[in-house]
Amino acid sequence: MSESKVHRSGRHFLQIPGPTNVPERVLRAMSRATEDHRGPELASLTLRVLRRLREVFRTRGPVILYPSSGTGAWEAALVNTLSPGDRVLMFETGHFAVLWSQLAGRLGLEVELVPGDWRRGVNPAEVESRLSRDASYRIRAVGVVHNETSTGVTSDVAAIRQAMDRAGHPALLLVDTISSLGSIDYRHDEWGVDVTVAASQKGLMLPPGLGLNSLSEKALAAAGQARSPRSYWDWKPPLKENAKGFFPYTPASNLLYGLDVALDMLLEEGLENVFARHSRLAEATRRAVQGWGLELQALDPGEYSDSLTAVRVPGGHDADRLRKLILERFDMSLGTGLGKVKGRVFRIGHLGDFNELMLAGTLCGVEMGLDLAGVPHRPGGVGAALQYLARTP
Amino acid sequence: MSESKVHRSGRHFLQIPGPTNVPERVLRAMSRATEDHRGPELASLTLRVLRRLREVFRTRGPVILYPSSGTGAWEAALVNTLSPGDRVLMFETGHFAVLWSQLAGRLGLEVELVPGDWRRGVNPAEVESRLSRDASYRIRAVGVVHNETSTGVTSDVAAIRQAMDRAGHPALLLVDTISSLGSIDYRHDEWGVDVTVAASQKGLMLPPGLGLNSLSEKALAAAGQARSPRSYWDWKPPLKENAKGFFPYTPASNLLYGLDVALDMLLEEGLENVFARHSRLAEATRRAVQGWGLELQALDPGEYSDSLTAVRVPGGHDADRLRKLILERFDMSLGTGLGKVKGRVFRIGHLGDFNELMLAGTLCGVEMGLDLAGVPHRPGGVGAALQYLARTP
Amino acid sequence: MSESKVHRSGRHFLQIPGPTNVPERVLRAMSRATEDHRGPELASLTLRVLRRLREVFRTRGPVILYPSSGTGAWEAALVNTLSPGDRVLMFETGHFAVLWSQLAGRLGLEVELVPGDWRRGVNPAEVESRLSRDASYRIRAVGVVHNETSTGVTSDVAAIRQAMDRAGHPALLLVDTISSLGSIDYRHDEWGVDVTVAASQKGLMLPPGLGLNSLSEKALAAAGQARSPRSYWDWKPPLKENAKGFFPYTPASNLLYGLDVALDMLLEEGLENVFARHSRLAEATRRAVQGWGLELQALDPGEYSDSLTAVRVPGGHDADRLRKLILERFDMSLGTGLGKVKGRVFRIGHLGDFNELMLAGTLCGVEMGLDLAGVPHRPGGVGAALQYLARTP
Amino acid sequence: MSESKVHRSGRHFLQIPGPTNVPERVLRAMSRATEDHRGPELASLTLRVLRRLREVFRTRGPVILYPSSGTGAWEAALVNTLSPGDRVLMFETGHFAVLWSQLAGRLGLEVELVPGDWRRGVNPAEVESRLSRDASYRIRAVGVVHNETSTGVTSDVAAIRQAMDRAGHPALLLVDTISSLGSIDYRHDEWGVDVTVAASQKGLMLPPGLGLNSLSEKALAAAGQARSPRSYWDWKPPLKENAKGFFPYTPASNLLYGLDVALDMLLEEGLENVFARHSRLAEATRRAVQGWGLELQALDPGEYSDSLTAVRVPGGHDADRLRKLILERFDMSLGTGLGKVKGRVFRIGHLGDFNELMLAGTLCGVEMGLDLAGVPHRPGGVGAALQYLARTP
Repeated sequence: MSESKVHRSGRHFLQIPGPTNVPERVLRAMSRATEDHRGPELASLTLRVLRRLREVFRTRGPVILYPSSGTGAWEAALVNTLSPGDRVLMFETGHFAVLWSQLAGRLGLEVELVPGDWRRGVNPAEVESRLSRDASYRIRAVGVVHNETSTGVTSDVAAIRQAMDRAGHPALLLVDTISSLGSIDYRHDEWGVDVTVAASQKGLMLPPGLGLNSLSEKALAAAGQARSPRSYWDWKPPLKENAKGFFPYTPASNLLYGLDVALDMLLEEGLENVFARHSRLAEATRRAVQGWGLELQALDPGEYSDSLTAVRVPGGHDADRLRKLILERFDMSLGTGLGKVKGRVFRIGHLGDFNELMLAGTLCGVEMGLDLAGVPHRPGGVGAALQYLARTP
Repeated sequence: MSESKVHRSGRHFLQIPGPTNVPERVLRAMSRATEDHRGPELASLTLRVLRRLREVFRTRGPVILYPSSGTGAWEAALVNTLSPGDRVLMFETGHFAVLWSQLAGRLGLEVELVPGDWRRGVNPAEVESRLSRDASYRIRAVGVVHNETSTGVTSDVAAIRQAMDRAGHPALLLVDTISSLGSIDYRHDEWGVDVTVAASQKGLMLPPGLGLNSLSEKALAAAGQARSPRSYWDWKPPLKENAKGFFPYTPASNLLYGLDVALDMLLEEGLENVFARHSRLAEATRRAVQGWGLELQALDPGEYSDSLTAVRVPGGHDADRLRKLILERFDMSLGTGLGKVKGRVFRIGHLGDFNELMLAGTLCGVEMGLDLAGVPHRPGGVGAALQYLARTP
Repeated sequence: MSESKVHRSGRHFLQIPGPTNVPERVLRAMSRATEDHRGPELASLTLRVLRRLREVFRTRGPVILYPSSGTGAWEAALVNTLSPGDRVLMFETGHFAVLWSQLAGRLGLEVELVPGDWRRGVNPAEVESRLSRDASYRIRAVGVVHNETSTGVTSDVAAIRQAMDRAGHPALLLVDTISSLGSIDYRHDEWGVDVTVAASQKGLMLPPGLGLNSLSEKALAAAGQARSPRSYWDWKPPLKENAKGFFPYTPASNLLYGLDVALDMLLEEGLENVFARHSRLAEATRRAVQGWGLELQALDPGEYSDSLTAVRVPGGHDADRLRKLILERFDMSLGTGLGKVKGRVFRIGHLGDFNELMLAGTLCGVEMGLDLAGVPHRPGGVGAALQYLARTP
Repeated sequence: MSESKVHRSGRHFLQIPGPTNVPERVLRAMSRATEDHRGPELASLTLRVLRRLREVFRTRGPVILYPSSGTGAWEAALVNTLSPGDRVLMFETGHFAVLWSQLAGRLGLEVELVPGDWRRGVNPAEVESRLSRDASYRIRAVGVVHNETSTGVTSDVAAIRQAMDRAGHPALLLVDTISSLGSIDYRHDEWGVDVTVAASQKGLMLPPGLGLNSLSEKALAAAGQARSPRSYWDWKPPLKENAKGFFPYTPASNLLYGLDVALDMLLEEGLENVFARHSRLAEATRRAVQGWGLELQALDPGEYSDSLTAVRVPGGHDADRLRKLILERFDMSLGTGLGKVKGRVFRIGHLGDFNELMLAGTLCGVEMGLDLAGVPHRPGGVGAALQYLARTP
């Protein structure tokens, strides 16, 4: 039987960096009766959703929606634009960048992975230098994670584009915005991105289940040449069907109902306001971390993420033990350290449908957890965050 | 059109002392399709709900459920047991006690209202003395508010019962538990209460819309004699119909669906655990108030409420201005000062489906609000609460 | 544990004449988080709801909303306008008219109940004659049920008003529209009604839990004189508070959320279209009954109800056995015969959020049930209804 | 803005052969708050869901769940077991069989498609003969659609297995049960199927968004050899993670909540009862079609589908015009003719959460539609269905 679990009073604090807290209004929309996927009403909803997604990606080009996880959208970006044996330049900015590069390898691409320390974003100079050396244009694409969900480090996509342009290199620019879209300023067209990869369960404030690609003209042209075998991920059938509001498969209709409302909410608030809100909550979180005397995983203030903060625990202490204690004692989920920072880092998600008092409760939970777990820290983190939130308009 | 309001991100903090934050599980249950009120399924649900409500009231006697507000349940308690001209002994413990006494007056009862300062509960010695002086038994009922929602002060019902017994007086004991039932220990049978008055929207974790009475044998006997005109509130028809799981009118079925699940939750957690949780969160709140150097409306620690805390603002400051600022800036609703403490007091509700991090967020909102509103206070309130919550198991 | 019942596949057909099938959109609205009943958002919702309810009642006067059943709204109409000992002229048109008259008696009113055969509406000539004979104006109010839910018979309220006017009698006109409002044309102001009584669970497409009164100027004036003791039902406090969007008690907020959406739906469809739809579905139902060769409880075609149809079963057959068989075999609830037609009549509700194919399924269930129960009938009922529905635009 | 469409009264009849009418109980479950995909509660839900899915597939082997449409599950079955250039034997039983074969072609497989007339299932003798002639075992897999959703024709999977065994051929048996699983008897293990393909939106009573594979030992062994490039669809990572209740990607959690409840419902009713119910409703539908004097698309009674019925319209008449008329006039969606039967066929879905009166309403809508569209037919269809439903226990 479902829902037989022992009751814990009050709301769970879901402070992993996604899936995020889905607004009730979105959850209610998802509980609408499923309708005919070939009928006129779903068609008009689809057209409305796709039009408004373009606003969110800041693109005039098409957006493709898959019933999939974000990993599916990663795969779609690669198989539509590249052919087996093609070289892709990628950067080890963190766990998800590594996973994406491994996925590329499994699909028969040759990955040039620039090593990194998981504490910094992509170095545009490195991009320029690598591409400049690639006189024969063996590199067909540059793959960048805009916001590394495992480390809370962003990369400067506009600067990377400029570096590519300076190198005069024709490679495509593929960008993962899974944990930034709808939370951190992002501009597909203006920044000259060819394929943007996204997913539903972060800034879009939906449950998981939708993967997204947005496409430049150049990406579409590349798709005409690419020889990676593909069917489910092939852009052509949805591009054709979407024009009329349909899909080449049965779409995940109830997630679309939710997406329609989530887009209402993002656009009602205004993207600029959404970004400012995330920025403010992120800054308060970092002030708390500084107040505790703990270290951020991100080294460069210019690269701090506004959607999550990865915090390093002092040597000899286990971040997962802290997380477990906080979950059991305060019913809050924090993000685990992934890959090579496992046990060294915990992550606080502060993205999506989130506000100041939810953040305050979150930071109080962390502060009490640090205390209970015996992790050395100063007590003033919450106070520093509150002071910032109260005094900065 | 509904739901057209401008979006505010994240969850509203509903920290008035009721209606409380309704659990999602209860809200979902309320969205079940309405069914035949004379059918077998609603009958079995009704029997299950009434049986388990008795556990919550701690009574073996009947519980009556009205589609009504709590004021309706007040009226029901009076019109079923008393006749026009009957005298009722009541105590000015706060705004709701005054409202109940005024209601009694409108129904033709003669109210003997013992004056009070709104900072203390009922004095059992006063009960004993008043009743002892009433040698002719003109007083037919003693009406007491167990937990004054306007002041955060409780009265000791067991001690009042003992005082009545010492006086050897036959008056009925009527008790309002609207903001205590399901939050603070209460025992209808053991404490010798004749009519307990309750409502759905506080510790029962439902939206408003149901009023409740639980009845002693003596109350039932009084109902046989009482001459107040009554129809809707008359206990006899529901007592007869409820035995089979029906009602003498169309019941508020979807609130019953919610109540069924709310009772699941209360009994899964266990009433003792529910009370302990409320007690712990209330103590943390009071430590925050002390930390801020502010004054509680309640004067006697033995009478502190575990479901809400009324906080006095220093002279020259307006509690409602503070509340408005907190609502606008942090999207949190706090309780207003009612009646003669209007502007002097704000109230923090910490009852119902509530936990430590929700409370932490609440207290952070108050602390930031005090700062922004320029209400003189010390900054250490949140810290004191966190220290208590973290260090006290 | 809730919801543990054995699953029956597919949707239950709730074809009692109320509670009706609540639209999903309304149920979803009711599952919104409960908010502060003294906050600005609920205030604006309340004002919007009250304004639009006036459109539904077709009145420019105030509408009062109670957390109550319809019986509460009956009581409110009487206690606000009349004093103990006042005489009320009522008509035995069916079970609910009788219940209302009994309620009046319990409240100390003197009821003059004109006997009836439960198959016809109020005779305006009788109204005129009774009032004309009452030279001393002992009769203070005429109470009429617009649509008798127990019999499927309507009364002509406009003609009753004219009869009262012809008699030149000052009695108030009180009308129960519990099963007609929002389903059958009704005009509070134009027809000169003083108090209209309604409830949420029929044409308003909500679950039960709200009772309503709409008031004429004359009713308001009478309320100033009436001496029935009252508090919960007293119009004055809500009239005062409602002007600002508030209530003198904690309102049943989640039912208000549902009401807001139900009003969206009624006004989007347009009241005239709503009435035409009910009329069409009712006519199809009657054609089915005629097709089966069964008899309607209503005798006069001019009084046929458009919200329900009461069908007589031939002598020697038990309508409740038929209903039970249909419930068990086809998962459809039909209305029972009430009071003196118990076992002789079953009722088909065709009001609220309802359409042609839902009606078709309903009538098929009745036809199969008649067959299985061995109730003598001709087989052509469904066919006659379908022919009407298909061929009449 | 979402949900701004003009209201149509009552429930839409969603009678396409999937997505099916999702039970309210499932929709409500899907509106639960999204939780940590790496937390203990989702893990236990996942283990419970996967265990019970095995009961539904009737297998002791693993079941793989993808956030995807059914077409994704088709692709997964192929890329995990086959290598580019491998030959697959498929049968043109209808539109979906053709689509699956085209998908195989796009993935670099060589398809041997046995032509068909879209009115019959797979001929086991043809399977035997084709495989017997394939002495070099070039055919690596036989792909069969158990229930052709475009035609309402089933294929006898057990007989196909026996034919393969008689031929002594080692090809894998891949079976699409997208529109049969949970509606029509199916036995993965007993029938010797290697990969079963399914999706959420038909007999599993969920919205679209989940694709499923169930796997034999032989399929797992084949996956160890297959050289089709794959990442998202690769069985290995989920097989490893699922053992602990996790996924190698963020799962579509809210669809899993719904699936958990849908499995409650299927297993509460009992699979045998579920199949019997579908069989009964399908037979009633066919009797209606015969009553109308129309022709079924399926030619062989032994191959009639119990989840949908495809009906041929007489020459010169357009099935899509009929469907459009029924949608506009009666708010019912029927399935369109797909591929080469476009305009010649309409399809009635009678699967999923469905019962007798819903079917009755459906058939009434078709009968009225035939009448209004001027499609030649006899009027007795509904009557024949009702007679069957009433008289056959």
